[in-house]
Amino acid sequence: MLSVHGGAAKKMKGPFTMSVVDFTSFVNELADLSGKTILPFFRTALSAANKAGGRGFDPVTEADRAAELAMRRHIGEHFPLHGLIGEEYGAEDDEADYVWVLDPIDGTRAFIAGLPLWGTLIGLVHQGNPCFGMMNQPFIRERFWGDGEAAYYQGPLGERRLMTSRCQHVNEAILTATTPAMFKDKMKDDFQRLEMEALTTRYGADAYGYCMLAAGHIDIVVESDLQSYDIIPLIPIIEGAGGIVTTWQGDKPAQGGSIVAAATKQLHQEVLRILNV
Amino acid sequence: MLSVHGGAAKKMKGPFTMSVVDFTSFVNELADLSGKTILPFFRTALSAANKAGGRGFDPVTEADRAAELAMRRHIGEHFPLHGLIGEEYGAEDDEADYVWVLDPIDGTRAFIAGLPLWGTLIGLVHQGNPCFGMMNQPFIRERFWGDGEAAYYQGPLGERRLMTSRCQHVNEAILTATTPAMFKDKMKDDFQRLEMEALTTRYGADAYGYCMLAAGHIDIVVESDLQSYDIIPLIPIIEGAGGIVTTWQGDKPAQGGSIVAAATKQLHQEVLRILNV
Repeated sequence: MLSVHGGAAKKMKGPFTMSVVDFTSFVNELADLSGKTILPFFRTALSAANKAGGRGFDPVTEADRAAELAMRRHIGEHFPLHGLIGEEYGAEDDEADYVWVLDPIDGTRAFIAGLPLWGTLIGLVHQGNPCFGMMNQPFIRERFWGDGEAAYYQGPLGERRLMTSRCQHVNEAILTATTPAMFKDKMKDDFQRLEMEALTTRYGADAYGYCMLAAGHIDIVVESDLQSYDIIPLIPIIEGAGGIVTTWQGDKPAQGGSIVAAATKQLHQEVLRILNV
Repeated sequence: MLSVHGGAAKKMKGPFTMSVVDFTSFVNELADLSGKTILPFFRTALSAANKAGGRGFDPVTEADRAAELAMRRHIGEHFPLHGLIGEEYGAEDDEADYVWVLDPIDGTRAFIAGLPLWGTLIGLVHQGNPCFGMMNQPFIRERFWGDGEAAYYQGPLGERRLMTSRCQHVNEAILTATTPAMFKDKMKDDFQRLEMEALTTRYGADAYGYCMLAAGHIDIVVESDLQSYDIIPLIPIIEGAGGIVTTWQGDKPAQGGSIVAAATKQLHQEVLRILNV
């Protein structure tokens, strides 16, 4: 169990009573809260006018904002000294020792299309290092979480430890990306080269792809143009399950950008070699 | 409620006592049966050797076969005079008045990748016309069914009537296809032209895409190379929800091949116009 120092005390400069809290249960509270907020907006039909970017009711944005506010409020009450970075409401105290990273609806296209492959990402960074992450899918009632050392799953099939596959070669690997359209120019050629070598490719997974990598069903996830909040909450899950995640250049992934996640070190090296010809 | 004539009597040439049965409840039994059979195989990790086409345990094929056999047995017990067409075990009495069409796991790639977008398709054809269809997703516990006149949904959000969107123009439409790789040669160009005009495109939906069309969240599904058992069970759902489904040439879709499903007649015509330049 990962513990962090918190306290329901008001934010203050001086010393205050610290209490050690069960951190996993706190993140579960955030997941409960955001799930309850988002679900009433899922599969609410959009009128064509809304989809075309017109004014009016936009369920994804509404759900995104409501869930982020609910989580921010809950974090502020329990950890007033922690920083916050969210997709909708930006950064607050992001130089703090502990910073929360929130993406209420990762996979907005899936959400709009009624497909249950979107998820709520909740991450915690300690002194710059992602130290805890959760992906919550409230419609299916699935949770994937990890702390970089271990990763776990809870859902319709029960509870289990997450472990990546032992796949070592691209030609035996299941590859996924949200959409081939995310790769432009040279990256498009690089991705196509990888796709040609992989056993099979599947599109349309969003955050779910990384969770299925952690669970051993997908072997490689390759994406581009990610924001830091898209990937930070997933890093402790992938690494906790035994996987490797970096940029396409092999650097630390927490800034986002182009991302490669793989089941094993050997597979990861092979993917980088193919992408960086 | 659609009713068909059946009877638990043994198959015989002469006349036998006919009884009118509640057909929806019978298809629900088939869905229960196949779901129970398939679920233990879902998210069973595949070894690289299996994925690479080696011998040994292949959970998708095992689940596919076991579920089809279970459904065939149940149908045979209750409707001994009905014909059967299944993905795994082929056709039997397919000239009968009523013919069942079964695809235990539509979306095998999604299944292998651990993504819950596969589904069990159960259809019934009466004198050549698809008259009832169901898509069952046992992991999420969702069912979509219809008889060409109406269509319904049951799942985590409760029960509801399915209705397609009122979208009339491609530039306001959400388009989906399982993968862009399914379109070859001229069809590839045709699909790309449609994709350029659509509001947004989402890949990776399989049978789920048609169900989300029926539910009003997706406006167009375009695919190619479908088998008849891939599409027959979905036709009464799409049409029952108010949608239109044909081949790319505008012909009846029950033979499979290249398929266009759209939310409205006007949208469907516009899609055919763009694809058939």
